Amino acid sequence: MEPMKVVLSDDEIPRQWYNVMADLPTPMSPPLHPGTGQPIAAQDLAPVFPMNLIEQEVSTERWIDIPEPVLEKYLLWRPSPLCRARQFEKVLDAPVRIYYKNEGMSPAGSHKPNTAIAQAYYNKVFGIKRLSTETGAGQWGSALSMACKMFGLQCRVFMVRVSFEQKPYRRLMMMTWGGECISSPSDRTRAGRQILAENPDSPGSLGIAISEAIEDAVGDETARYSLGSVLNHVLLHQTIIGLEAQKQLAKIGEYPDVVLGCAGGGSNFAGISLPFVRDKLHGKQVEIVAAEPTSCPTLTRGPFAYDFGDTAMTTPLLPMHTLGHGFLPAPIHAGGLRYHGMAPIVSHLVKEGVVEARAFNQIETFTAGVQWAQTEGFIPAPETNHVIAAVVQEAERARQEGKEKVILFNWSGHGIIDLPAYDAFFSGKLTPYELPEEEILKALESIAGLPKP
Amino acid sequence: MEPMKVVLSDDEIPRQWYNVMADLPTPMSPPLHPGTGQPIAAQDLAPVFPMNLIEQEVSTERWIDIPEPVLEKYLLWRPSPLCRARQFEKVLDAPVRIYYKNEGMSPAGSHKPNTAIAQAYYNKVFGIKRLSTETGAGQWGSALSMACKMFGLQCRVFMVRVSFEQKPYRRLMMMTWGGECISSPSDRTRAGRQILAENPDSPGSLGIAISEAIEDAVGDETARYSLGSVLNHVLLHQTIIGLEAQKQLAKIGEYPDVVLGCAGGGSNFAGISLPFVRDKLHGKQVEIVAAEPTSCPTLTRGPFAYDFGDTAMTTPLLPMHTLGHGFLPAPIHAGGLRYHGMAPIVSHLVKEGVVEARAFNQIETFTAGVQWAQTEGFIPAPETNHVIAAVVQEAERARQEGKEKVILFNWSGHGIIDLPAYDAFFSGKLTPYELPEEEILKALESIAGLPKP
Repeated sequence: MEPMKVVLSDDEIPRQWYNVMADLPTPMSPPLHPGTGQPIAAQDLAPVFPMNLIEQEVSTERWIDIPEPVLEKYLLWRPSPLCRARQFEKVLDAPVRIYYKNEGMSPAGSHKPNTAIAQAYYNKVFGIKRLSTETGAGQWGSALSMACKMFGLQCRVFMVRVSFEQKPYRRLMMMTWGGECISSPSDRTRAGRQILAENPDSPGSLGIAISEAIEDAVGDETARYSLGSVLNHVLLHQTIIGLEAQKQLAKIGEYPDVVLGCAGGGSNFAGISLPFVRDKLHGKQVEIVAAEPTSCPTLTRGPFAYDFGDTAMTTPLLPMHTLGHGFLPAPIHAGGLRYHGMAPIVSHLVKEGVVEARAFNQIETFTAGVQWAQTEGFIPAPETNHVIAAVVQEAERARQEGKEKVILFNWSGHGIIDLPAYDAFFSGKLTPYELPEEEILKALESIAGLPKP
Repeated sequence: MEPMKVVLSDDEIPRQWYNVMADLPTPMSPPLHPGTGQPIAAQDLAPVFPMNLIEQEVSTERWIDIPEPVLEKYLLWRPSPLCRARQFEKVLDAPVRIYYKNEGMSPAGSHKPNTAIAQAYYNKVFGIKRLSTETGAGQWGSALSMACKMFGLQCRVFMVRVSFEQKPYRRLMMMTWGGECISSPSDRTRAGRQILAENPDSPGSLGIAISEAIEDAVGDETARYSLGSVLNHVLLHQTIIGLEAQKQLAKIGEYPDVVLGCAGGGSNFAGISLPFVRDKLHGKQVEIVAAEPTSCPTLTRGPFAYDFGDTAMTTPLLPMHTLGHGFLPAPIHAGGLRYHGMAPIVSHLVKEGVVEARAFNQIETFTAGVQWAQTEGFIPAPETNHVIAAVVQEAERARQEGKEKVILFNWSGHGIIDLPAYDAFFSGKLTPYELPEEEILKALESIAGLPKP
């Protein structure tokens, strides 16, 4: 009987996060103040984030200690198992060995608690009483609700309306963990009211929800805003995934030829891949692939430019691949991938050719996801189906090239709460959602007058 | 940092199930043929179950090898972690160390795949093409759908109507794994049509759904029936839970003072407890407690008697604690505990004083479950909330007695698909459902004329 999993005991959990800022071959462009167009100062962010997280955001230390209280919560489910997908390999019939990190094992069902726990902890230590945030598919909002409850903070979540309506169970999860969940755009904020005035039927977007959550936090000095992806410190917290994977692969003498993750804001992708980016920057041969939806092809079809993180143009200008903050993604079921921009770190690595990006449509992603569920058992989230489609493509290439390949990917979350999306897939209601060029050009008008990186 | 989990590597998984039949201090009464009233012969069951499972049902071998193809599927998620509930211990503030087996980690979210995988395998080996079954909350139906897909069998599931309507996501899970899910009572069977004729609004029950599934299987010689609890071979397959727990506890030098599980049909309870029953029968000091709902108090208020396993009186007569096959449990949210009877093995052990049973109402179980979710993170199934309520009670006793206690329990499944039940709890829509004595007496009339054990 061949082993299927590599498990780590509690005392083998990594004690530090990895900060790729220490190893970048070229410097990243700085975020700019939206008013002045000058590089932003730490103090400018103080109404939005606690200072201890701002320090982490700009840190260039290679290794950052994980605080004990954070580790204690991580151990509720971490280290996550590294699994070999032997059953899936059989149906692919290609010369590949496929390993995946099962991040669906967390209480919230995804990788999101890795940073939610850390952010709730740092805010608590800084004396904050309440966090405000946005959520797309609801994975992030539920993770932060749980983390806040564990550290005695209140939590308010603005949930993108299309997901709020498609995924009532996510709202109930937040409630069970004591979080308050509000459909966005809402009438609670100026930003929300403005959108509703223009379009009362707006399906919402991550960009809009971010605007609402920031406005809500900045208006209350005991509150701060929390973001579930995109920013440097968020990606930092997620590196525990890749660091665990490296330990686990080393135990069985394997090293991946290719590392993959799906990318919406970029955090789960960065989480598994950044420790391998480090290896690659030090000369190791490894391909690193980000999988995104054809309906929101930020990395594959958006330019690298300065843009706002939100729709109401309140955030700093971030240097990133973007479709323009005016872009409103189609209401596909992978709500976590419906974001006009992309983490600056991930964008930078794509621009530098360290990371490759590929886009997949809903039909091919659900086809891959169902094949996975029917062989490996675990039902993937619609977001996760994107990376599974990329794995299928990698296996196909390996078969055509007749080349043995070791594949590692991040199984970012389960799809139990997304089952209506599978229903839509089986009943033929999904379309591929390939984005027309003219829509991209139109959306990009929103960044025409902004500075260039 | 103190460890929170004990993990086993793949090669430490138990290779045999434990059969308590080899160790019972007193013989169990035999199942009786419903027509003749005589002990049933293996051949009588042949239209219902494959012969290899019938042999397991009557086996008295102490250890039964787990076939390699079953182990291979188990390893998709097993061994399940043994976790220490340190955060929950803190809020209980009692001198207890609480360990739990997290069976919610399986792809179906509960312990059910432990026997679903085994049953699908044995049916496949025997040449069967299709399995028919019933499901209460949907945990079993989804587990069997998955297992059938993995071994290339078709699967048809009769789902108790009240759960079918309360838990649409379970139906979608079955669909994703290729199973066919039918609301019960249905017009597909004679048994279903008869119930509908008497009461078109019947909420259904496990007893009714069992009748439908058996009828459906017996009418098709390439099909067999599959049961997710109650029977000896089902409990046998679940013992992997307790056997893993014993290995895990031995690694940290612990032994439980009390072992607990919730009990509907009895299989998850038996799964964790039977290996400890063995120790107890060999002189070890250990309390073993089954937690059931006050709305369906089979063990605490039902007599030990011969009764049918189903409502249409088609199964053999089983010696068990029962509320009578005419009993229709209130539509509480813990659908998996809504069964008039109880596994004969569990019933026998209660009768012999080896196992103690306690009943808990919906309010105390959800209160305990929310406290769990807000400290340990994982949201428990409504069924699982019953054992958590029993754990809270044990901790309270330990505090009152000032006695240190090691508690082990089976965290039988997650409640992600049961979130509307939490919604009902938070909005004050749940009632305790204490069953009036006259209802029990009325239900017991249905067994008045049957043989006595």
